Amino acid sequence: MKIGIIGLGLIGGCLGLDFRSQAYKVLGVSRQQSTCDIAVEKGVVDESSTSLELLATADLIFICTPIHLLVPTLEKLTPYLKPQAIVTDVGSVKGAIVANCSRLWPNFVGGHPMAGKTEQGINAAQLGLFVNTPYLITPLESTPHFAVKILTEIVEKLGCQIYYSSPEEHDRAVAWISHLPVMISTSLIQACAEEQDLNIRQLAENLASSGFRDTSRVGGGNPELGLMMAKYNRQALLISLTNYRQNLDEIIDYIAGEKWQELEKILVSSNQYRDNFIQ
Amino acid sequence: MKIGIIGLGLIGGCLGLDFRSQAYKVLGVSRQQSTCDIAVEKGVVDESSTSLELLATADLIFICTPIHLLVPTLEKLTPYLKPQAIVTDVGSVKGAIVANCSRLWPNFVGGHPMAGKTEQGINAAQLGLFVNTPYLITPLESTPHFAVKILTEIVEKLGCQIYYSSPEEHDRAVAWISHLPVMISTSLIQACAEEQDLNIRQLAENLASSGFRDTSRVGGGNPELGLMMAKYNRQALLISLTNYRQNLDEIIDYIAGEKWQELEKILVSSNQYRDNFIQ
Repeated sequence: MKIGIIGLGLIGGCLGLDFRSQAYKVLGVSRQQSTCDIAVEKGVVDESSTSLELLATADLIFICTPIHLLVPTLEKLTPYLKPQAIVTDVGSVKGAIVANCSRLWPNFVGGHPMAGKTEQGINAAQLGLFVNTPYLITPLESTPHFAVKILTEIVEKLGCQIYYSSPEEHDRAVAWISHLPVMISTSLIQACAEEQDLNIRQLAENLASSGFRDTSRVGGGNPELGLMMAKYNRQALLISLTNYRQNLDEIIDYIAGEKWQELEKILVSSNQYRDNFIQ
Repeated sequence: MKIGIIGLGLIGGCLGLDFRSQAYKVLGVSRQQSTCDIAVEKGVVDESSTSLELLATADLIFICTPIHLLVPTLEKLTPYLKPQAIVTDVGSVKGAIVANCSRLWPNFVGGHPMAGKTEQGINAAQLGLFVNTPYLITPLESTPHFAVKILTEIVEKLGCQIYYSSPEEHDRAVAWISHLPVMISTSLIQACAEEQDLNIRQLAENLASSGFRDTSRVGGGNPELGLMMAKYNRQALLISLTNYRQNLDEIIDYIAGEKWQELEKILVSSNQYRDNFIQ
């Protein structure tokens, strides 16, 4: 089995290292010749090229480009593919991506590894990034079973916990736990930045400690990624944002009206419910 | 110089350990005899008692009780105090506390160490918790200079970065960086808990990773503490919440209206502005 990887950044690089450590032959494609060279040097891939033609012999191909390049990349790739080749992606939204990619290539199976780290790029690639992290596979009803089965078998070797859902369920779930947090965390930073009293703003900056650091972390992250979430998961994100605002309004109402029992009830239930998320 | 500590929890315990390591004599008062015993055993205090009378010889007293007990504790303490004794507190809100305490005891100086850890109680006490953390001192215009000077000299020995502000400036600053984050983080957990589609809710719980963990951390914290923040810093917190909601509405509006350039501008400026907080 030959595995192809398009886009040799952090995720593509980690996939390559893991698969090669299990004796798969890995072929890597990057737009940058310099990245291709690093990939071979670091042992991320066996062979690399800036041309998609390299993947003519690949059996399973992971497209690891930024979200907005997924569909155009697959469009350019299909002329080179073996008829039975399976294509998957690692994009963090699935609805539109899976629909479009499946039209371009019937053996397409959407996927989303929920792993990452702050450092980006191939130089941050490491062995074992995916161990014990969730990996979501999002087939359509029309997706061939053999394609889902082979992707599952390969992803299992990364040490992931595999989940299955429809692309739409995926998008609504990640809106809650990934995309909504980015927007509320961004709003926090923005609101603080708009404090008009310079003394207070400076004091806030000086006093900020771990609570602020954690709550503002994803809002201070990569702006491009935040924009892509909003663009590609707009509808699910808007649903989450609207529900979130209702909850926020409730809390504001309780504090404004000094309804302390109601506020306490919410604080207690949040304290308990959070455990469901944090295994 | 004899130092008194009332309330031998995490903060009181850490103060005791640090001051004793610098050869100050430390007297500790707790409501629980068992806590008094542990405090002596662990070397947190030289002497301990469940009675405030122990502090009759103390020169500087730190009240480290929960916020709602600060004023009642000082009321009971004053009959025992030496006339020149200085009293301070470590409460996380200052406005009402400092006003009331200064009326009860003119040599009262408000203070707020911005240090902590997840574990609570005297058994979590450790040396050096305050090193390189901010410590805010919040005198009134009427506060005697000698009292501020002596508190400053003692707090400097903890290795803190000392800042001064009015109690009101303090409360508005911590509303931004400490109390607002708790409320928006609570709203996040609540909103996720209210997802009606069980499949999606379960998927969200399974997929949640570091982004959700960090953004929800302070919302899943001690409910009592959250309630106290809201009760005792209600006005400043409401101002922060209102401004925050305006920013959130703006982001919702941009996403709903597909105003991607405006959204990008906010994401970029948040990414940059966050550095002001994270030294």
